[in-house]
Amino acid sequence: MDKWLVGVDLGGTTIKIAFITFDGHIVEKWEIPTNKAEDGKNIVNDIADSISAKLDQLSEKREKLAAIGMGAPGFIDMKTGFIYHAVNIGWRNYALKDELEKATGLPVTIDNDANIAAIGEMWRGAGDGEGNLLMVTLGTGVGGGIIVNGHIMHGTNGMAGEIGHITSIPEGGAHCNCGKTGCIETIASATGIARIAKLKASAEKSSTLNKVLKDKGELKAKDVAEAAEKGDAAAIATLDEVAFHLGLVIANISNSINPGKIVIGGGVSKAGNILMSRLEKEFKRFALPRVAEGATLTVATLGNDAGIIGGAWLAKHNLSNTI
Amino acid sequence: MDKWLVGVDLGGTTIKIAFITFDGHIVEKWEIPTNKAEDGKNIVNDIADSISAKLDQLSEKREKLAAIGMGAPGFIDMKTGFIYHAVNIGWRNYALKDELEKATGLPVTIDNDANIAAIGEMWRGAGDGEGNLLMVTLGTGVGGGIIVNGHIMHGTNGMAGEIGHITSIPEGGAHCNCGKTGCIETIASATGIARIAKLKASAEKSSTLNKVLKDKGELKAKDVAEAAEKGDAAAIATLDEVAFHLGLVIANISNSINPGKIVIGGGVSKAGNILMSRLEKEFKRFALPRVAEGATLTVATLGNDAGIIGGAWLAKHNLSNTI
Repeated sequence: MDKWLVGVDLGGTTIKIAFITFDGHIVEKWEIPTNKAEDGKNIVNDIADSISAKLDQLSEKREKLAAIGMGAPGFIDMKTGFIYHAVNIGWRNYALKDELEKATGLPVTIDNDANIAAIGEMWRGAGDGEGNLLMVTLGTGVGGGIIVNGHIMHGTNGMAGEIGHITSIPEGGAHCNCGKTGCIETIASATGIARIAKLKASAEKSSTLNKVLKDKGELKAKDVAEAAEKGDAAAIATLDEVAFHLGLVIANISNSINPGKIVIGGGVSKAGNILMSRLEKEFKRFALPRVAEGATLTVATLGNDAGIIGGAWLAKHNLSNTI
Repeated sequence: MDKWLVGVDLGGTTIKIAFITFDGHIVEKWEIPTNKAEDGKNIVNDIADSISAKLDQLSEKREKLAAIGMGAPGFIDMKTGFIYHAVNIGWRNYALKDELEKATGLPVTIDNDANIAAIGEMWRGAGDGEGNLLMVTLGTGVGGGIIVNGHIMHGTNGMAGEIGHITSIPEGGAHCNCGKTGCIETIASATGIARIAKLKASAEKSSTLNKVLKDKGELKAKDVAEAAEKGDAAAIATLDEVAFHLGLVIANISNSINPGKIVIGGGVSKAGNILMSRLEKEFKRFALPRVAEGATLTVATLGNDAGIIGGAWLAKHNLSNTI
C-alpha cells in the first residue's frame, strides 16, 4: 500500500501532525500551534488546512491519504469520537470525529492521548510488537495506557489506564489534583519528585540538593537525577522513595494484567538508569516471580513521536476493521 | 440449537460436570470424585465414562453434545490446553485438551478455574452480561479473573487475574504462601480473616470473639461475621481492617482496568452486607469518582455452578470461533 496515514496528536500548546506509511515510518512531520480562542472552534479547520498545505508542498494529491488517527486529551467516547470535555482545549460536547471527517473528507478515529502513545510504543517503539503492554508516562502528572492482545483497553467508561490515581500511601499521603490523597501521581510525577526532593534537601542542609534549592529557589526532577548521579545522599534518598512507591504500584498492576513489556515514558524517564535500576529492584520485590519473569521493564524510545505514530496505527487498524 | 454443551470444573476433591444449553441453562449436573491415584492418569477417562453413562441414563446419543469447556487448576497454556503443573492433581506436562478430545470425540477448550468462574458469573450470574468485569474469589486463598470486552484476560504468560498476590502492606505484612509478605491473600482470605480475628480477640478479652476462640480453640471467618452481626467490637474491627485493605486493592485494580461490575465470590462473600457495605465504602474512598460511578460492586450468584457454566461459555465461544 503506497498510501499514507495521518497521525494527529493534540496537546494544549501544539498539535503534532505526521504523514506515516502503513508500516509505521514517518514520511513528514510538523507542528502547528493549538488555537484555543473561542473554545477551540478553529482547531479542526487549522488541522485540515495544514494537511492540505503540506500535501501541496510535497506535490501530492488528497488521494495519497488513507485515513486519520488522532489523540486528544479529556473524556472521549472512543466509538463515536465525541469529546465530553477537554479542559485544556475548551471543547465541551464536541463531535470531533464528525467535524474532522467533514473538514478533511477522510475517515477519522479518535482516542485518548495517553492511549495512542502506548499503542505507538507497542507498534514502533520500546514495546517491540508485544501485544500485552503497560505504558507509564511520568510527566507533570502520571498517565498510562494498557494494551491487551494488541488492542487499547478502554474499560467500561473510558477510564482504563488512569494509573496515576492508584493509591500508594493509603493514609497520610500528599493531596492530589484529583481530590484524593497518596496517589502515585503525588510521588512519581515530575512535580511529586520535586516535592519530595525539597523535603529531603531541607532535612540535609549539607546536601548538593539543598545547595541547588538555595541557588535556584526551586528544584526540578532533573536536578534530583543530576545530584543523584554525583552521589548526593538527599537526591538518592528521593529516588529510593520514588522507586519504592512506583515499583510497588507497577508490580500490583502487573499482578493483575500480566504485561510482557512495561514501558516508562515522559520527561522523568530521562533520568535513565539511576531511576530504572531502582525501579526494577522494587518491581521484582513486589511482583509474583512468574509475573516478573514475563515482563521486561524498559524506557520509551519514541519520545514526542509516540502520539502521531500511535494515531497512524489507530487509523490503519480502523481501516482494516471496516474494509 | 438444540445440542448441549458440556461444562467441566476440575477441583482437588471433586469434578463437577454439567450438560448446558446454548443459552446457558443447566439441563443436568452431577459430580464425580477426583481420582488422584497414579498422578491423576485416570481422570480424563473417568470424565469421558461419566459423560457416556449420563447420556445413556438420559436416553440421549453422543450427537446431542457439541463441545466441552473445562476449568482446571494450575499453570495452563490456554491455546494448546497443555497443563504445565497442577500441584493438587498431580499432572505435570500433561496434554489435557488432546487427551480429553481423544477420550470423548468432542472438541475441548481448557482454561484456568478462576477464569471460567469469572466468565460464568459474567454470562449467567451477578455479572449480568457486563463485558468488563472483575471477579474476586475470597476462599482459602484469594483468586480472581478479569473479563475485558467479554473475553478472559490471560496476560503474557497466563498470570492475569492473579490478584491475591497484590501487595497491600508493603512493609511488615504477614507471610504469604507465595513467598512474599503483605499480599491481600494474607488479609482477605478465610485464613487471613481468621488470623486477624485471633489477634483482635486476644487483645479484647471480654469480646464475644475471644469467648468463641476459647470454646472452639479456633476461629473461622464465619464466626467473625456472626459476632459482627451481634455488634462485637473485636469482630467489627476485624471486618473494618479486611474491608480497608480489600477496598484499597479493588479500587487500585479498578483505577487500572475500569470494570463495569466487580463480583465478590467464594465462601467469605457469604458474610453478606456486614462485609459488603464496608467494602463499598472503602472502594469509593480509593477509586477515582468516575471509576467508582462506572462500577457496581456485587456478590456472586452462581455459587459452585460458576465453573461449569463458564466452561459451557468457553465451549460455545470456541465453536463460534472455529466454525
